[in-house]
Amino acid sequence: MSKQVAVILSGCGVFDGSEIYETTLTLLRLDQLGIGYRCFAPDIAQHHVIDHRSGEVAPDETRNVLVESARLARGEISPLSDLEADEFDAVILPGGFGAAKNLSTFAEAGSDMVVLGELIEALEGFRESRKPIGLMCISPVMVPRLLGQGIAVTVGHDPGVSGVISAMGGLHRGCGVEDIVVDFENRVVTTPAYMLATRISEAATGIFKLVDRLDEMMDL
Amino acid sequence: MSKQVAVILSGCGVFDGSEIYETTLTLLRLDQLGIGYRCFAPDIAQHHVIDHRSGEVAPDETRNVLVESARLARGEISPLSDLEADEFDAVILPGGFGAAKNLSTFAEAGSDMVVLGELIEALEGFRESRKPIGLMCISPVMVPRLLGQGIAVTVGHDPGVSGVISAMGGLHRGCGVEDIVVDFENRVVTTPAYMLATRISEAATGIFKLVDRLDEMMDL
Repeated sequence: MSKQVAVILSGCGVFDGSEIYETTLTLLRLDQLGIGYRCFAPDIAQHHVIDHRSGEVAPDETRNVLVESARLARGEISPLSDLEADEFDAVILPGGFGAAKNLSTFAEAGSDMVVLGELIEALEGFRESRKPIGLMCISPVMVPRLLGQGIAVTVGHDPGVSGVISAMGGLHRGCGVEDIVVDFENRVVTTPAYMLATRISEAATGIFKLVDRLDEMMDL
Repeated sequence: MSKQVAVILSGCGVFDGSEIYETTLTLLRLDQLGIGYRCFAPDIAQHHVIDHRSGEVAPDETRNVLVESARLARGEISPLSDLEADEFDAVILPGGFGAAKNLSTFAEAGSDMVVLGELIEALEGFRESRKPIGLMCISPVMVPRLLGQGIAVTVGHDPGVSGVISAMGGLHRGCGVEDIVVDFENRVVTTPAYMLATRISEAATGIFKLVDRLDEMMDL
């Protein structure tokens, strides 16, 4: 029986959902390592829809996070409420503004942010059974509210975001785009990805390193 | 000055646009090889919108091909009408149903299909100057109408689609998911990708091979 990893998505597109390249590169590396995966997303309305060409809010559009995330999963996706930690060996959250707008209120509320209750519940089983947890790009900003205080994470070098992490009781470590930060005690691995990447191959290097490290940690 | 490749998209999502993994893997490989790229898409309405979770048509939704393709390009995209072959060394068309619904009418019309005039014009310069052209997944079905008759391509082993290619005066060669078909004379390279892939790593192998071959052909 191969290892199984849950991947939690937040839409489809960097400005209002999951970052597409980060998600694809995560799935690619899992599959290259012979690790099975299943995608999940909350069945909720998106915070808003961004026209990715203009960068503006599309005022009359509404989209559903689970339905849009299904694009990133070629239709193979389940509601986040169905995620059972005991069926998986690890969990990964790619980035994209969906993490800051749909999975949490970070984009609007900063350090006063609230994380989606359903997501906190879904992660609880992984935390309790000490299964490794990977987060990339902006997703690590949720860690203090999602997994608890005093957990070392990275979002690269952004002073604003790292300040928010500190304000919520988290620990931030600076990190290059092609590297990872590992909190061994709490079994949390993070990488900056598109918080810093200017090229897709840079993001790939950091993301592959994150997945490889989670693979090792699943054996321990 | 590095080589430059144009990548032509048809939306964002396998069932009504560009296949997301195929596009991402194409861009990854180009960047790993140090090749620059620019994405293009036609500024037209999508044929329809498919709910990728249910697989059904979303009856009241309309989306624009260029705007949705921008999700796949992190906003860095230009209208297909701006594509000038003399600014690029090669062109690649990923697959997904967008090729069969937005770039052509293959999904509805089979061998009576029409290819978008703007796409035929955009490819003309590449064909005339003998710059290599890559197509994957279902996109090669457009080749007889897009580039001319008697050009060898593959869509894997699908008898229906290969029959349509033959009916339009094209040549179809069977091919495994991790391989490519090269028409040396016409400088066209094709790979089955998600016409056959059951795993993302299989698609990656064929797509990387296609990009690597185009890279070699750009030197010749």
